[in-house]
Amino acid sequence: MPTLHHLALLPECRFARLICKEYGIDLHLVEEPVWERREAFLALNPAGEVPVFVDDEGAVVVGAAALMEYLEETRGPAEGETRLMPTRPAERAEVRRLVGWAQRKIAADVSTWIVTEKALKRMMPEKLGGGAPDSAALRAARANWKWHLSYLDHLLDMRNWVAGDRITHADFAIAAELSALDYLGEIAWPEGGPTRDWYARMKSRPSFRPVLADIVRGIKPPAHYADPDF
Amino acid sequence: MPTLHHLALLPECRFARLICKEYGIDLHLVEEPVWERREAFLALNPAGEVPVFVDDEGAVVVGAAALMEYLEETRGPAEGETRLMPTRPAERAEVRRLVGWAQRKIAADVSTWIVTEKALKRMMPEKLGGGAPDSAALRAARANWKWHLSYLDHLLDMRNWVAGDRITHADFAIAAELSALDYLGEIAWPEGGPTRDWYARMKSRPSFRPVLADIVRGIKPPAHYADPDF
Repeated sequence: MPTLHHLALLPECRFARLICKEYGIDLHLVEEPVWERREAFLALNPAGEVPVFVDDEGAVVVGAAALMEYLEETRGPAEGETRLMPTRPAERAEVRRLVGWAQRKIAADVSTWIVTEKALKRMMPEKLGGGAPDSAALRAARANWKWHLSYLDHLLDMRNWVAGDRITHADFAIAAELSALDYLGEIAWPEGGPTRDWYARMKSRPSFRPVLADIVRGIKPPAHYADPDF
Repeated sequence: MPTLHHLALLPECRFARLICKEYGIDLHLVEEPVWERREAFLALNPAGEVPVFVDDEGAVVVGAAALMEYLEETRGPAEGETRLMPTRPAERAEVRRLVGWAQRKIAADVSTWIVTEKALKRMMPEKLGGGAPDSAALRAARANWKWHLSYLDHLLDMRNWVAGDRITHADFAIAAELSALDYLGEIAWPEGGPTRDWYARMKSRPSFRPVLADIVRGIKPPAHYADPDF
C-alpha cells in the first residue's frame, strides 16, 4: 500500500488523498509535523513540505501537482471514462492552470494563512512558531478569499465542472481548498449559487468521505461541514 | 509563431523561454506589465501572472510548469535523445520535484523578492506599488538564498545534472532562477564548486544566449553575467 505523508487540514494534502481515492488507491496515512523538520522526513523531501507520496516500489513523489501527473502516468490509462485528465494537450493545460490557480492563488493568498493561523499554530510548540493566530493575517486572507470566490462563481456559471464538461483533477484541487476553509468555519455559504451547487456535488462523491470524516483534535468543524446536503 | 507574454527578469518567464528554445520553438515575445492588470491580458490569464504561452492554434498555457508538460505532450516525442523529460514515471516525478523546488522555494523565498524589490518596483508607478526597495525584504531573501544554494551544491556534488545523469527541465527551471539573481548582482560566485561549474555549462548552451543578451532598461548586469567562462 502506498504511503502519504501529510497534514490533515492542508488543502494540498487533501487534494492528494482525494485523487488517490478516485483512482482506487488506498493509502497508509502518516501525519508529518513538518515544523519539527525530522531528518528522516527531510531525506524524503529536502524542502520539508507535505504531501509526499511513496509508492510500493519506493518511488517518491513530492507535491500534489506532481502526484497528479504521476497517477496519470502510472494509473491514468486504466481509468478509461473516469480518468480525471483530458487527453487533448490544450485541455490538459487548462486543468493544470486551475490546479496552479488553487495552489498559487487560493493557497498562497488565503488557505495557507487561515490553516496556519487557526490550526497549525495550535499544534506547533511556541519556539517553532506556535501561538495565537495573527488577526492581521486572517483579515488579509479573508479579503483575498472574496476575490477568489467570485472568480470561482464566474467559472461555474459557465461550466459544469471547473475545467469544462467533465470532472477533472482541477475540481479536486479547488474543492480541497474549500474543504479546509469550510472545516475552519471560514465559508459563509449563500443560499444557492454555482459554487455551492458544485461543492455539494463534490462532497457527495465517495472519495470525499474519508476526508470529511477526519476530525482535527481540538477543532470542531461547523455542523454543515460533512453534510453533502448542506 | 507562438507568443509568450512575459517579464524579462522573472525567473519563471526565463524558464519558459529556455525550454522553448531548447525544443527549437521561436517565440514572439510580448512584455506584460502585470501591475497594470490590462483587461486583454486578464482574459488570457485571470490570475494576472506571467508567463502565458499562446500556441499557433490558440491553445493558452499558463505558467512555466504547465508549459513544460505541454511541450512534452506536443513536441517531446520528436525530441528523441535531446528530450528534457525522462520516460520513467519515478524519474519524471524527480524532475517535477525540482521544478517545484525552484518555483516554491527559490522563487517564493528569494528571487521573487529580489526581482520585485530591485527591478519591478522601479518600473511600477508608485500608486501601483512602485518605489524604493524594501531593505528588510532584501535581507530576508538573501538569508534564504544561502540555504537554497547549499542544497544545490549538495545535489550537484552527487549528480552531473540536477535531476540525475541527463539534463532535464529541472536544470532550466533552476538556472533561470540563478540567472535573474546573477543579473541583479546577487550571486557572489566562489572560485569553483559544483554549482558554478554546472551554471557555466548551462550558460554555454545556445538556448541561453537570447536570455543573457537581454538588457533591462536602467539596470546594468555585472561584467561576468553573460560570460560563459566567468
